[in-house]
Amino acid sequence: MKTLFSIFLLLVTISCYAQTYESDSYVCPPCGNQCDKLIFNKASNCPHCKMQLIKKSETIKKNHTICFYLQDGVEVLDFAGPMEVFSYAGATIFTVSKTKQPIKAQGVLQITPDYDLKSAPPFDVLAVFGGNAGRAADDPEVIAWIKARQPTTQYYFSICTGAFILGKAGLLDSLTVTTFHDSIDDLKKAVPSATVLPNTRFVDNGTVITTAGISAGIDGALYLVEKFGGRDFAKRVAEYMEYDKWVPEQGLVVSKK
Amino acid sequence: MKTLFSIFLLLVTISCYAQTYESDSYVCPPCGNQCDKLIFNKASNCPHCKMQLIKKSETIKKNHTICFYLQDGVEVLDFAGPMEVFSYAGATIFTVSKTKQPIKAQGVLQITPDYDLKSAPPFDVLAVFGGNAGRAADDPEVIAWIKARQPTTQYYFSICTGAFILGKAGLLDSLTVTTFHDSIDDLKKAVPSATVLPNTRFVDNGTVITTAGISAGIDGALYLVEKFGGRDFAKRVAEYMEYDKWVPEQGLVVSKK
Repeated sequence: MKTLFSIFLLLVTISCYAQTYESDSYVCPPCGNQCDKLIFNKASNCPHCKMQLIKKSETIKKNHTICFYLQDGVEVLDFAGPMEVFSYAGATIFTVSKTKQPIKAQGVLQITPDYDLKSAPPFDVLAVFGGNAGRAADDPEVIAWIKARQPTTQYYFSICTGAFILGKAGLLDSLTVTTFHDSIDDLKKAVPSATVLPNTRFVDNGTVITTAGISAGIDGALYLVEKFGGRDFAKRVAEYMEYDKWVPEQGLVVSKK
Repeated sequence: MKTLFSIFLLLVTISCYAQTYESDSYVCPPCGNQCDKLIFNKASNCPHCKMQLIKKSETIKKNHTICFYLQDGVEVLDFAGPMEVFSYAGATIFTVSKTKQPIKAQGVLQITPDYDLKSAPPFDVLAVFGGNAGRAADDPEVIAWIKARQPTTQYYFSICTGAFILGKAGLLDSLTVTTFHDSIDDLKKAVPSATVLPNTRFVDNGTVITTAGISAGIDGALYLVEKFGGRDFAKRVAEYMEYDKWVPEQGLVVSKK
């Protein structure tokens, strides 16, 4: 069956390449199947996974690698919203936890991380999330790991109370930031030099982007896609997800990089 | 450490029960920790997991059991949005897949299901999702399982192309339904007797609720919480999730049950 599918893929690939040139080629949004590697010459649906093809030139220009750090008890939508957005935008994603042991997200979803702290490859963006965030923020090993990875990390992205993890690593000092609506005062106490804004969907400080609670991770991730690939592309990602509720102006850009 | 925490829980429990009566008691939204079982006598945050307490009388009146059927390749946000909503609303949730082997959601998230088809306990609501939906819809064993569980299943809830799974089980015949925006025509072909509506966030037929694509699962789940526990409660769940984008009127109620 695998051999048959490989032959089918080879034939489709040859046929597509024969008619394709870079400026108008189409690709399949990453779905984890072999069709992720195919290139098509017109807009249609992937014949294998049925997903709507996207213009290759419109995927995130630099294919960023995004590390999802997941602690035991992590809130499901905190990470799943951005995971959906970044996946469809063509980013490379992997999950990391303190160890390779399975964790239970929100007490209901058993997840096995791709890597532990030691084995995780380098990444461009470190994304951290709420839901039992103290499990990471109060763990000296996790904080030491975040600091040790600083030379190769370009951006930090926190959702909800994930901000407390970045705060503990000293990454929010003197910045304007946000977090979960019920944790605004606690974050002010945890990072006294930071200005913590309520009622702000996300805040971009150039390399540190923080979002409000839970569902706001979707908006923050769409903003990052806009930052990396332009608003038109981000809008198309939102349309694909049927998330016509994205209002880019609900965020605050303090500094771009 | 565990013993110390158990003593702490016992003391908190005794202290809370001493002052509590049912009509104004507060509980912790399910987080998978032991504090899920505590009852408090005033609105505050859980001293253990820090989550905002909710009124016990305002959780879903009947504590529904919701089965999340996850096939390999399932779209992350399709199931994670409803999982967040139902978790916070106090429903009992478990995950089921064809076997107990790990699956990879959207090619990026490794999940181990709680049960396989044979071992899954009974449930009130069967929820099915898009992302490689054919893997379930075209599998006679999965469809036979859905049919075999009909006597004990009260509601069916599909997100995105999860509708094709319900369609294959004969559950959409002659109903008004919806699905992912790019699959409207395909669903019309798959279930010719159904009326398939575009641009509709969700459709309720009484016992069968279908939603539009990906992010629409959040709205559909909030609608189900409203159906089970009232709009005020559903609004509070949306507020907690910072999902002020819920517009109940974007759905269509054909029939209530």
